Amino acid sequence: MKTLKIIKIGGNIIDDASSLSAFIELFAKLEGPKILIHGGGKLATKLATDLGMEVNMIDGRRVTNAATLDIITMVYAGKINKNIVVQLQAKHCNAIGFSGADGNTIVSKKRPATPIDYGFAGDIAQVNTAVLEVLLTQGVAPVFCALTHDQNGQLLNTNADTIASELAIAFANTYETELYYCFEKNGVLRDVDDETSVIKHISTENYQDLMQQRIISEGMLPKLLNCIYAIQKNVNKVCIGKPEMLSNPNANFTTITK
Amino acid sequence: MKTLKIIKIGGNIIDDASSLSAFIELFAKLEGPKILIHGGGKLATKLATDLGMEVNMIDGRRVTNAATLDIITMVYAGKINKNIVVQLQAKHCNAIGFSGADGNTIVSKKRPATPIDYGFAGDIAQVNTAVLEVLLTQGVAPVFCALTHDQNGQLLNTNADTIASELAIAFANTYETELYYCFEKNGVLRDVDDETSVIKHISTENYQDLMQQRIISEGMLPKLLNCIYAIQKNVNKVCIGKPEMLSNPNANFTTITK
Repeated sequence: MKTLKIIKIGGNIIDDASSLSAFIELFAKLEGPKILIHGGGKLATKLATDLGMEVNMIDGRRVTNAATLDIITMVYAGKINKNIVVQLQAKHCNAIGFSGADGNTIVSKKRPATPIDYGFAGDIAQVNTAVLEVLLTQGVAPVFCALTHDQNGQLLNTNADTIASELAIAFANTYETELYYCFEKNGVLRDVDDETSVIKHISTENYQDLMQQRIISEGMLPKLLNCIYAIQKNVNKVCIGKPEMLSNPNANFTTITK
Repeated sequence: MKTLKIIKIGGNIIDDASSLSAFIELFAKLEGPKILIHGGGKLATKLATDLGMEVNMIDGRRVTNAATLDIITMVYAGKINKNIVVQLQAKHCNAIGFSGADGNTIVSKKRPATPIDYGFAGDIAQVNTAVLEVLLTQGVAPVFCALTHDQNGQLLNTNADTIASELAIAFANTYETELYYCFEKNGVLRDVDDETSVIKHISTENYQDLMQQRIISEGMLPKLLNCIYAIQKNVNKVCIGKPEMLSNPNANFTTITK
């Protein structure tokens, strides 16, 4: 089976022009089928502020009312997505931008309004890989923003980490799937303040020990559980770290395996 | 040869929610391969105004500085494009949104800064149909916004009418191509104030007579020349009129043929 690389980049890479352009260069050079998923960064909040809108967050999660969904659609699917695509094209990587509505690729359900009403937030119900597989075969790299749809005409704001893991899981039957979460740290750290304290290997067997010993920081927990879930659903390999892990096998990063 | 329908909708359809939803319903029902191109409408100007930016127009053409290009990218490729795609999906039409950067489909050159500097405006240099053909074969309907790229990382604002005619021309060797310009009038009118005065047929032979007799209004001239150019470049049929021409052969509209 061929290997498919699914790579997610977070806000810190997107918000910094030089980090983004270094990442673009790196991604463009990766051989074989690949999919990119990008988060939103601070640009949506900036545009909302510039338009005099209030940004409403609960526990670090954005509450997406209709006006906020408009902003997100403009920033995620418009500005960020097209800027990534146009930069990849300049590096001879034939990218095509996607939301989950495009090609009906990612169908989600609006999150129930109780106990907390997050507005137009969607939880993924189904991933349709057919169109994506055709494009991957043609050497095209799909680039996803964090929007999905409900098949009834509604776009929904969806967590980019989850989009990445659900895409990886959906392709696990047809490819050897590798899932990479790129962010600003070297990986899962024993001590959040010490970049050299990377836990190099986490398995489905030892992650609960690490959790019980409270070695995993609270901020890392949802990301790690996402990773473990992907591994349990037959994704071959999940890595967390800085983008350099994609090109340098000697780099410091965390690998999660069965 | 199979028939490919290439349909362009203008701002007046996009700006009005009920016109747009009627059009979406109509487009979704069209059988066979089809491509949609949409203009921008007034939303980009509204967002620019809301952000306190000046909108600079010369002879009805937008001057695209860097900030304006950002706005256009957000509104055209983000808000309008994704809203059309999500509504088409709700009507079971498997749409995928495109700018000319996506799939490297439309390459353009920045317009020279003399005699008038339109900023980041692009004139189409090349259309690459390979990826689009693969998608059309899969039953996917590409939906284009009016942005192209220069292959060096620069998005460029490009006339939507021209995108439509250049796409039709590029496909003329592989499909019987039909090009439809949908707008708010019944077609090319003998008297701009009389909707019943539609000129039903214009040919490459009689259009110059119509121009010399000054029967074609000034506003219609660039659109008509675009149509004549497409016909001369082997597009099979070009029509101008209201969207109903797509479903009702007895509707009043203008057909341009050899």
